[in-house]
Amino acid sequence: MSRTGCAISALSRNVRPVRSSVLDVQGRRFATGIVGNTSSVELKVSQDRLMADIHATCEWGKGPRWGTGKHETGMSRLALSDADKECRDWFVHTTKSLGCEVTVDAMGNTFAVRPGRRRGFPPTCAGSHLDTQPTGGRYDGILGVCAGLEMLRVLHEQKIETHFPVGVVNWTNEEGARFPISMVASGVWAGVIPLEKAHNLREVGGNGRTMKQELDRIGYLGEKDAHHQAIPLGAHFELHIEQGPRLQAGNRRIGVVHGVQAYRWHTITVQGQDCHTGTTDFANRSDALLTTARLILHSHRLAVKYDALASTGIIRAIPGSTNTVPGWVQFSLDIRATKDDVLLDLEKHLKSDFDEIIRGNPVNGLNDGPEVMGRPCTIEWTLDAPSRATRFDDGCIDCVRQSAAHLLGTEYKEYIQEMISGAGHDSVFTSRRCPTSMIFVPCLDGLSHNPAEYCAPNDCANGAQVLMDSVLRFDRLRQVNSGE
Amino acid sequence: MSRTGCAISALSRNVRPVRSSVLDVQGRRFATGIVGNTSSVELKVSQDRLMADIHATCEWGKGPRWGTGKHETGMSRLALSDADKECRDWFVHTTKSLGCEVTVDAMGNTFAVRPGRRRGFPPTCAGSHLDTQPTGGRYDGILGVCAGLEMLRVLHEQKIETHFPVGVVNWTNEEGARFPISMVASGVWAGVIPLEKAHNLREVGGNGRTMKQELDRIGYLGEKDAHHQAIPLGAHFELHIEQGPRLQAGNRRIGVVHGVQAYRWHTITVQGQDCHTGTTDFANRSDALLTTARLILHSHRLAVKYDALASTGIIRAIPGSTNTVPGWVQFSLDIRATKDDVLLDLEKHLKSDFDEIIRGNPVNGLNDGPEVMGRPCTIEWTLDAPSRATRFDDGCIDCVRQSAAHLLGTEYKEYIQEMISGAGHDSVFTSRRCPTSMIFVPCLDGLSHNPAEYCAPNDCANGAQVLMDSVLRFDRLRQVNSGE
Repeated sequence: MSRTGCAISALSRNVRPVRSSVLDVQGRRFATGIVGNTSSVELKVSQDRLMADIHATCEWGKGPRWGTGKHETGMSRLALSDADKECRDWFVHTTKSLGCEVTVDAMGNTFAVRPGRRRGFPPTCAGSHLDTQPTGGRYDGILGVCAGLEMLRVLHEQKIETHFPVGVVNWTNEEGARFPISMVASGVWAGVIPLEKAHNLREVGGNGRTMKQELDRIGYLGEKDAHHQAIPLGAHFELHIEQGPRLQAGNRRIGVVHGVQAYRWHTITVQGQDCHTGTTDFANRSDALLTTARLILHSHRLAVKYDALASTGIIRAIPGSTNTVPGWVQFSLDIRATKDDVLLDLEKHLKSDFDEIIRGNPVNGLNDGPEVMGRPCTIEWTLDAPSRATRFDDGCIDCVRQSAAHLLGTEYKEYIQEMISGAGHDSVFTSRRCPTSMIFVPCLDGLSHNPAEYCAPNDCANGAQVLMDSVLRFDRLRQVNSGE
Repeated sequence: MSRTGCAISALSRNVRPVRSSVLDVQGRRFATGIVGNTSSVELKVSQDRLMADIHATCEWGKGPRWGTGKHETGMSRLALSDADKECRDWFVHTTKSLGCEVTVDAMGNTFAVRPGRRRGFPPTCAGSHLDTQPTGGRYDGILGVCAGLEMLRVLHEQKIETHFPVGVVNWTNEEGARFPISMVASGVWAGVIPLEKAHNLREVGGNGRTMKQELDRIGYLGEKDAHHQAIPLGAHFELHIEQGPRLQAGNRRIGVVHGVQAYRWHTITVQGQDCHTGTTDFANRSDALLTTARLILHSHRLAVKYDALASTGIIRAIPGSTNTVPGWVQFSLDIRATKDDVLLDLEKHLKSDFDEIIRGNPVNGLNDGPEVMGRPCTIEWTLDAPSRATRFDDGCIDCVRQSAAHLLGTEYKEYIQEMISGAGHDSVFTSRRCPTSMIFVPCLDGLSHNPAEYCAPNDCANGAQVLMDSVLRFDRLRQVNSGE
């Protein structure tokens, strides 16, 4: 199965050759003059080198095969596993060889920083993560880190000197798949999640080892404080696959990401009573699963009304026998909206409607007409993970948009998508402490968290190009703003 | 927790003392003259002895405790387990001590037959099962066998001689909990289920031992053919707890059971596509779980319309993660109706409506108005267990009704419930080969297949009394019909 046939050929005309830029007396080029509509520096990432990095590193933690092609295997590189250690070691070794200074903090976050002309200032960074889902793909997180590395390779090769330092960050356990809080290490860095709580997280389904034990075991329990004050960043740009279908559907190449929508994850328990499916008429049932079907459907209907999202991914019905009506059902409810107040309004409305539905009262076409109400169930909500809406930095967003425009040419507006991220990323936490934004590239059919997750090489390269340009543009902005 | 406070005191006036009946020259009483409105034989079961048998046998395979009382533990006596063997050995030993001849067939079905005046004729039997659910109670099946045994005790103690033989049957693996076909051994006996298929059934979740291996291991692989022609029955009466709430709700003491409703068990698989809950808008989803919620709700609505039942007891959503929309859901659908043609009509209607629903077409208030359709799912139905409607024998039903009337007195109509069994029982299969009917007694809140399943001692005794009287009435009927 080959997936190289994406409709991206129209863009190749926009990829221009490197041309020489200003040279200083030591023969080093300065990355200057790229603020505004024209660029005097034309640095080009290497698609082949980028893809080689992605695929070489994906040998560590290789997952299940989904196609017959050489690279058609998924990833299973859980955070702080042996495979993760090998990949981290490569990252440290490679970035050092490109002239970076590497710092590991107490959460294993790894900061590879390339000096600029001005020393001692926080770096403008690209960042993402090298850990994956247990049945993940080759692009989620990995693309962002490898693209950052490709930026370092270009700067090194072309002997570019930036004004301020630039760098690449590998954030630990972004997925939350092994240690069950996602984005936990950037959360600690941002001062939002306590270090001790993170260190004491126990791995899911394993031998119960803690995050701290595993950091120590693989040699990534750094001495530096995992804190934005100890390791400040000048800015954070994150390239990521969209993990959704919008870019592909609209034939857009670059997503200019303005922020991340708010979400709230709940676990909802519906308590009824087990009974025999054959001997209990509807009026005498307290059917937790039929009630849950109504609740799930209603959550969808109300989310539509609020222009929000509601999704159930987990459902368990006990006791789980064909001829027993389940007396106990638990399900997840993930609600999301671009604005915090809309999300809270939706949640309030859901709670009040759910209360009516479980009591058998009619709500918008449920529990009326041809249904038999039976005996009421009870309901309990548990809030597992609230996340407020994130608005990225306008300056960073502008850098991304201008870089995309530069790549995509005069008709760039047809090829970019101004958008909000549906999923959380480390950039949610960095944006609390430094100017941040994100760049999205299409992934096939929006498929992600799946071995067959796929981002075409040209799209990977487009993203890496916009990432590098954004970092360099932001470096220039900082220089201008500092009056130097 | 004590459950002795049920509203049964009104009935005690109906329990009359034993009075003498006709004696023959050897001093044996004949069970005669009980056809019609009056009875010249007044035999009374012993409630205390019956309960002592139930509770003593429930030491074999004792399950989890649900209350503090002496007998407030459930049962976990899986078919052909060591506990089942101990209980079977007791059954064989006890019935032999009461003058019975015991035959074990190739399915482990155990027939304890007490001779009548006329030898060589098929016995009129009471029958049920001694196996239980893994988290079952003390009454489901056990009551029927122990009540049959109590009948043997009374006949033995009072030296009653019946015209034809009478007996008690313990059917193997009625629950289908260990070997996954319920009523499998009565099904083999009836010639409906092939012996080889039954013998090769492998235990659920264990070491994969077959039914034949386990029959052999515990010494109950009998030499006699498991077939109604090899071991014919004259009639089969089964006392059982209702396993539903109707008798309790109507303050009825005895259910006169006319038959068993038809049912068809399906496994339904809905295939959509996994996607991220945060990054995929409703229009781009193929949400197998939201679709399933619509299907479950619609199955309920349509069952109401058909005066039938529809229930989902099992549901699985893959991959099962809060932030992934499930692309695959499988659920059970158990539909039941008193008439075969109604059930088949309902099923046909469900299939056609489900096809519309998964395609996103509006069906009776689903998929319209405030919903977003997304991309269609596909659906697959698998029929696991069809069971046609069973109509019991009118003569047997009459015997039960008259016996209940005799017990309950002149106002008996207020205390009996003419009804259909919602659940399947061994009597479904015996009714294919001999006159059959059932007697139901109330169980608290209709709770069954649960450690806390409860039938009040008076109700157990009422049922046993009606069971014994029904067997004796039927014996007399056979005598009359034979012209002897």
